[in-house]
Amino acid sequence: MERIESASNAKIKWAASLHQRKNRERRGEFVAEGVRLAEMAAASDWPLRFCIVTESALAGERVRKIIDALDTKGCPIFIVPPNVYKKASATESPQGILLVMEAVHSSLSGLVVRKDSLFAILDRVQDPGNAGTIIRTADAAGCSGVIVLEGTVDLYSDKAVRSSMGSLFHLPIVTHVTAAEWAAFMREQGISCYAALLDQEAAPYFTKDYRRASAVVFGNEGNGISSEMLDEAEHIYIPMVGRAESLNVATSAAIVLYEAFRQRYSEDSSQQR
Amino acid sequence: MERIESASNAKIKWAASLHQRKNRERRGEFVAEGVRLAEMAAASDWPLRFCIVTESALAGERVRKIIDALDTKGCPIFIVPPNVYKKASATESPQGILLVMEAVHSSLSGLVVRKDSLFAILDRVQDPGNAGTIIRTADAAGCSGVIVLEGTVDLYSDKAVRSSMGSLFHLPIVTHVTAAEWAAFMREQGISCYAALLDQEAAPYFTKDYRRASAVVFGNEGNGISSEMLDEAEHIYIPMVGRAESLNVATSAAIVLYEAFRQRYSEDSSQQR
Repeated sequence: MERIESASNAKIKWAASLHQRKNRERRGEFVAEGVRLAEMAAASDWPLRFCIVTESALAGERVRKIIDALDTKGCPIFIVPPNVYKKASATESPQGILLVMEAVHSSLSGLVVRKDSLFAILDRVQDPGNAGTIIRTADAAGCSGVIVLEGTVDLYSDKAVRSSMGSLFHLPIVTHVTAAEWAAFMREQGISCYAALLDQEAAPYFTKDYRRASAVVFGNEGNGISSEMLDEAEHIYIPMVGRAESLNVATSAAIVLYEAFRQRYSEDSSQQR
Repeated sequence: MERIESASNAKIKWAASLHQRKNRERRGEFVAEGVRLAEMAAASDWPLRFCIVTESALAGERVRKIIDALDTKGCPIFIVPPNVYKKASATESPQGILLVMEAVHSSLSGLVVRKDSLFAILDRVQDPGNAGTIIRTADAAGCSGVIVLEGTVDLYSDKAVRSSMGSLFHLPIVTHVTAAEWAAFMREQGISCYAALLDQEAAPYFTKDYRRASAVVFGNEGNGISSEMLDEAEHIYIPMVGRAESLNVATSAAIVLYEAFRQRYSEDSSQQR
């Protein structure tokens, strides 16, 4: 462990630079900040560049355990005063621990598709909180991966990483996919693809059978799903009563992915009987 | 319509003061900002105090229609320059229209409970975005009301109002309810109450029958549901796979409320056959 006393230290500038998308993309790196995320990152097999931690954070037992785990992995650790930490941090009330990490990119061809695999597809989702929350929900609902189409928000922004609550490090995530690439892949693999949209003419989402290999597309907050993806998918909708005209896209994802989960779970239980 | 040229005008200060909870509670008023919310507010029967709008917002047809509707209702309208608007506004990129409104309070005894009513209960939910999103989802899923227990975040904060997307004006919302008041009410009305928690010993949420009068409790982001409410409710949980340890509370609400919706909808369709 080494001490850094100056905010103009190269490591601090390095971490701070990653709050900008262009630097994240150029370097292929991002920042995971906070106790919970550092814990998940330390437990994952994602490559770690270095850790920045404050003295006061180190006083906590949970952070000390994380630092021990990082140390065992050979991750360099830098102890800094609060004002230096603030330079590297993006949060308003920092917990005093952050990691600079290398992004791991999965590819479509590397995805394992089983006969009951479920995938979530983000088609130009713009809000980083929504994107991160969908990844967290997809992980919980047992998805085999998340496909991120061209034009979707950067999943490695501070807010998206935070909202994913570490599920980002767990689930295969394939980014920068085009609609044409996805279409070829789903045909080759025999995946049924559903597009969740605001169209009352479409079938209610719970009338579909998701127990085969399936994927569900969730679209842009304002403009929905692109026409290329609409052409490739069966259309479903979430019925709404009340005066609500739409649902938040992360809410929609939870509803449909958990309906798929429920169907699979119910089938498992009935087979066990 | 009247013009206001000074940021120190009493109306501007009045609107600005409502970004603080203590002023909202003292006055019983709040601010609804943005085109969509103003539209929903104008269409609702909630009492309107006054509207602040910029010249450039007024150039848009959608805003002009809102202003016409407000005018017909006798709501005072003030046209202001952008710098004055900014004083009254809470958003970083304002759309140039906001309403000062009076909060309408429903009471438990005023709630209409039918044999298939569904209620969402917020038990000390702390994040205004989560609270607003749950209200929006509850509206879409056909809930008959939202019960807000003591200690829950203020539903009239800018973020909560924005996240509710106007469903706040549509659904009966009963605030400042104690666990004991709810317990008495649910017994009297024969409402089945379910508590959604992180306890794998509890029953999976989809094994319950929500077609009778039901209520589902959603708890605090960090500490879950209070012991008083746990004592009053059947315990359910949302199964999770992957490395996700929990779901966002608004996500959990969507999953359970839409399972209730699905069960009711499926019953309706089978009765129609």
